[in-house]
Parts: sequence; structure tokens; C-alpha cells
Amino acid sequence: MSSENTVVLHKGLDNVYVAESSICYIDGENSKLFYRGYSVEDLAQRSTFEEVAFLLIYGWLPKREEFEGFVRTLRESYTPPQEVLAWLKTLPSQAHPMDVLRTAISMLSLYDRQGVDGGLEANRLRGLRVIGVTPTIIASFARIRRGVNPVEPKMDLPIASNFLYMLRGTEPDAFDASVMDKAMILHAEHEMNASTFSCIVTASTLSDMYSAITAGVATLKGPLHGGANEAALKYIQSVGSPEKAAEAVDRTLAAKQRIMGFGHRVYKNYDPRYMILKPLAKQLGERKGTLNLYLTAEAVERAAVERLSQHKLFPNVDFYSGLVFNALGIETDLFTPVFAMSRNAGWVAHVLEYLADNRLVRPKAYYTGKLNSPYVEMDRRGDKVEG
Amino acid sequence: MSSENTVVLHKGLDNVYVAESSICYIDGENSKLFYRGYSVEDLAQRSTFEEVAFLLIYGWLPKREEFEGFVRTLRESYTPPQEVLAWLKTLPSQAHPMDVLRTAISMLSLYDRQGVDGGLEANRLRGLRVIGVTPTIIASFARIRRGVNPVEPKMDLPIASNFLYMLRGTEPDAFDASVMDKAMILHAEHEMNASTFSCIVTASTLSDMYSAITAGVATLKGPLHGGANEAALKYIQSVGSPEKAAEAVDRTLAAKQRIMGFGHRVYKNYDPRYMILKPLAKQLGERKGTLNLYLTAEAVERAAVERLSQHKLFPNVDFYSGLVFNALGIETDLFTPVFAMSRNAGWVAHVLEYLADNRLVRPKAYYTGKLNSPYVEMDRRGDKVEG
Repeated sequence: MSSENTVVLHKGLDNVYVAESSICYIDGENSKLFYRGYSVEDLAQRSTFEEVAFLLIYGWLPKREEFEGFVRTLRESYTPPQEVLAWLKTLPSQAHPMDVLRTAISMLSLYDRQGVDGGLEANRLRGLRVIGVTPTIIASFARIRRGVNPVEPKMDLPIASNFLYMLRGTEPDAFDASVMDKAMILHAEHEMNASTFSCIVTASTLSDMYSAITAGVATLKGPLHGGANEAALKYIQSVGSPEKAAEAVDRTLAAKQRIMGFGHRVYKNYDPRYMILKPLAKQLGERKGTLNLYLTAEAVERAAVERLSQHKLFPNVDFYSGLVFNALGIETDLFTPVFAMSRNAGWVAHVLEYLADNRLVRPKAYYTGKLNSPYVEMDRRGDKVEG
Repeated sequence: MSSENTVVLHKGLDNVYVAESSICYIDGENSKLFYRGYSVEDLAQRSTFEEVAFLLIYGWLPKREEFEGFVRTLRESYTPPQEVLAWLKTLPSQAHPMDVLRTAISMLSLYDRQGVDGGLEANRLRGLRVIGVTPTIIASFARIRRGVNPVEPKMDLPIASNFLYMLRGTEPDAFDASVMDKAMILHAEHEMNASTFSCIVTASTLSDMYSAITAGVATLKGPLHGGANEAALKYIQSVGSPEKAAEAVDRTLAAKQRIMGFGHRVYKNYDPRYMILKPLAKQLGERKGTLNLYLTAEAVERAAVERLSQHKLFPNVDFYSGLVFNALGIETDLFTPVFAMSRNAGWVAHVLEYLADNRLVRPKAYYTGKLNSPYVEMDRRGDKVEG
């Protein structure tokens, strides 16, 4: 590929290995996803978001005492600094929830009394604080912009239930709580994607965990990364009913547009997270009386797979996660913040792993411009003489 | 270097080209630095920070009408949204100025009435707003934490003078204003460093300019990137006087510690920005009565060059920039924010150039962990069985 005399441009860093990692393995050919060696199927079925966060961050499944200490630390951070809560109440109601979350996480650093110690343990604790407090920030802003008071977190609820409780004002039933927990597990980690890499680039200058996660949220905000499930849901809603699906898909493809929630740079087959979410979306549809939307999604999926599978485009996690979040009563523009509140676990894990053997990220740009251009005084310049 | 069968790990992305660019060229062997083809020597001597910002962002030296329109746009953003100013007044006085700046820039997005248009022109305008308002944010916080009222920007002053005016409460003389302007020119851009790359990673998901610059500030905060001039100044201050320099340098090197402000991953010879700053530091020392500190720096430099030049370690921009900022009356912990307020120009330029031919940044991690670990229920787990 490269030699001393050839410059190879790695724009997008496709297939460039930027770190060794034992956190996550994606087997894109065989539709398998592992966190620390454990399959996401096992974890979604038998574990909890808190346990998965511990696993990602520490590298092993916790024993009971370890787990209880970890959960206690997370819960101690459920309540945001009062200054952050006061600030949320001043925001314009049309503020973008990802702008709010990015700013609020950045702001947390100002009220962390632990000071500026840059050690791994200090950064780990900062990471746990962000994981613990993010659901409260999102739910509080969601209620404030609706014109109702934020609901204080319940210290005895797990993160997923607590989030739905703070959003709705009433505790979710066991089924909703379980689906939310599984959805958070499935969004908790996904190897070296753009937002995770962004956290690492920031951390590599020995900046702090709040800075790293702020950068991660900033990066996740982009529609090429965090916004796909929102777009997929809107598409399915716009199709309206199952019998209109095939025609709608044909129209979309004829217009050279993408079917959102289809295709992935790594998975060349079904996304294993999709396989787990789809039956949950169906059960939610039956329970919530939104089965028509689910059946529309299924019909869109069938039509799209017929037309796209020869191009190795299969449904990914985003195709049904929007449906799931929607059925759980989460506002559409909160899907990406909910993604962030789950992915916090993976971001923290990757930052700590990278910092344990840090190398400043300092790539190069290949220069294509001029050199030695003569400086000309302003009033003697002609039309757009590019330098 | 690489073949189909060998995995090459590019940790730190040393010598990996991540983009083509016509913004900046560093000739590390020959101590030359060009912005859009113009040498920094010419620009520091004959241009202004505003003109350099235009050059970096648009690619050419502006004609008078272009320049006046550009300056008008910057000045219209000198005054922060009143909500941001109100928020600055609520902060704990010991807050880290880079935490404050990162949060404030993130916050600007919430009060931008232009909405969520992701086009290049909208992002350029956002970038100009950040360039215009950042000095006011930094100076306002600096005064607020001193317990005095912020000074409103003067709409007829250039950015560099205005910054010193807002910091001090009185307009700087022509010499101070000129040195500040030159220092900002020299910090405005430096190819694909960590913070610039961080901006690009964030922007590559089609997130927005505020998100990108927030990530840049988050990354610049790290002591491996933005903090070197602060550390260099503190070292020179700790040496105390010229005659103690040689012994202090020997002691530092014997303890296997770095002389801050020496060495650079790209320059293998004198940093051209150092060459410009050094005489300015001397003149400031003479004018401000701080010549002893300058002479100490010179003696440290001489001793360090004698001992380090065989290792290709020469003084870089940071060795004298701390001295310059200090002599201009800027608090030490504001040096990195001042770096950011200058580098805004380069960040905006790189983001816009990258977005014009965007490719999502999505590298890979090389997996070194286990696979197919069996999930064991919590109470049946042994000691730290890593997954």
C-alpha cells in the first residue's frame, strides 16, 4: 500500500488502526458483537446497563460487592449540581437537546470539587459521575421545555427505569423498564466510531474526562452518526401504513435517496443489535397500541431488504431503535441524547484504556497549496489572487 | 510498510495524512511556516490578525471591501449573548478558564437565532461569531473572578487591542497592541495538530461549527498541547536569574525532566515563530521593567541549546510566548484561552475546508481481547475473571 515515496491519504481513516483495544469486537461478516468478550445477546438477555458499564470500564463482570460500590457511586451522581439545574431552567424551549447536553456536561467540570488531578482514577470517577447524571440532565430539560417541573431522581432506581420515571413523572412498569435497559445496553459501546475516537483525540493531550465526553457529545450530534434512528422513525411514520411500504421504498431509491437505518460501514450483514430490538419493538407496538407503525416498519424493511441486500445493505440498530424509543414515550429529538447517555459507558472505557498507554494524536495534512507567495499591500490587490 | 496480512498500528497517527489541505505548510527542516503560501514572517510584520483570519478562512488576501465586510461581521459578534454574560457572573472564581471557555462556546449555539442549517455558509458565519466573541468571554471572566465588572468591547478596536482593553480596563498603547496582534497571528494556525484534528473529527459527522470548536477547546486544554507556554514561563520564573540558568538546566536534565518550550514533533530546528517572538519579548522586558526575567530566559535557552541541540531539540514558540503574554499583563492561566482565541481562525478554516469534501472519520481499533466468554451469574463469579 505505502512506500517511502508515495503519500497515502487516509481521509476518514477507513481501516486505519488507531489503538489496540480489548473493549469491543465487531464481527461484521457474521453479525456478532462482543463487549469484553461477552456477546451482546447474552448481555441484553441476562445483564443490566449498570453491570455492562462496569464490564466495559473495568474489563470483568463484577462480583456483588464491586457491583454494589459501583452502583452507589453512580447513584450519588444522579442529582446534578444545583447550578446546572438552575441553568437548564433559563434555556430557550426550542434549544437543541444535544446542544444542551454538550454544554451541561462541559459545565459539570466547573462544580467538581475534586480539582484538576489528571490521574486515571480521578478521570474514572469523573466518568462515573457523567454516566450517573446524564439521564437527569436530559429528562430535566425535557420537562422544563414542556413547562413542567423536573422530577428528582429516585435513588433506589436503576438508570434506565429512573430515566423513564424522570421523563414521565411516573415509574415505568417492569416491561418498559426492561426494554429501556436492553436498549441502553445495545447502545453502550461500538468500537472505534467517530464519537469514541473524538473522546480519545481530546484525552490524548491529557485534557480531562469532562472535556473528552463533551467532545464525544459534540461529535455524536452530527446526523451521519447519532441522528439515524430519528431519521428512520420519521421515514417509517411518513410511509404511514404497511401496504404503502413497497411503493415508498421504490420512490425513495428511484430518487437516489438512502433508506435510513440501512447499511453500516462495518456490518455487511444483519446488525445483531437489530435482531434483539426488532421483537422488542413488536411487543411494545402490541402493548402501546402502535402496532400499525411496527407493521409499517416491518413492511418497509421487507421491501428494502429485497431491493438492497444484493448491495450488502441490511437493517442496522437504528432501524428499530427509533420505534422502541418512540413507543417508550421518548420525544424524537431526545433519541440522540439517549444514545449519548448509553454510550457514555463506552466513551469512558475507551478513554481510560487509551490513557493507560497514551500517545498524543497528531496526524498530518498533505499540503496542496502554494509556497512563497509575495505579500501585497491591501490597496494593490487584484481580484481573488489565492495564496 | 503495510500489506494485506499485516496490521499496522498507527497510534498517535504520526505521519498519517488525514486530509489534503492548502491552509498551512510547515517546513520543519528549514524553520519555515506558511499560511496559504505566505510566510509568517511577512504576515507578522505586515498584516493583522483580522487579515490573517480572512486569509486562512477564504484562501486569499482580502481586497479592502471584502476586508471591511469581514471585520464588520467579527465586530458585530464582540458582545456575547446576555445569557452567556449572565452565566459567567455565576461561576466560582477558581473555575479553570479553559473549562469556562469550552462551556461558553458550547453555550453560544443555544442563542444563535440562525437555526440548524448545516450549510457551509451558515457554519462559516458561526465560526466568525466565535472568533469575534471569544476575546470578550475570556476577558469578562478574567475580570469577574477578580471581583470587578466586565468591560464592554469597543466596537472600533481590532481584536487584539480590544482584548487587552477589556482585560485591563484601559486601552493599550500602540506597542502593546502590536505585540498582541503579532502573537495572535503566530498562534492562529499550525497545520493538523491535535485540536485542529479534533475539530475535524467532530465536524465530519456533519455536526455544527460550535460543536467542532468546543471539541477543539476541549482538546487544546490538555497540557501536552496548550499548556506548554505556561509551563515554560513557570520554569523560567523558578530559575530566577541568568547566572543560575546553567545549573538549573543541568539539574532538570539530570532528573530526566523536559525543558518546557523545547522540541517539537515537526520542527527539527528553530521554530520560526520563536524567532519572531524573542525580540518582542526582549523589547517588552525593557519597556515593562521585566528585563531580568527575559535575560533569565535567554540564559536558560543558551544552556539548554548547548545541551540539547545534538538531540534536535530547539526552542519552540512556547518558550517566549509565555514571557510575552506575561509582560502584556495576561494572567498565566489565561495563556491557553488566548491560544484558543487565536487558533479559532485556523480551526474554522480547517473545518470549512474539510466539510467542502467531507468524509466521516471512522478508524478502527485492533482487538486484543477474548471472544465468546460465557456469561456467569453474579453470585457465582470468582476473583476478577477478565472477559
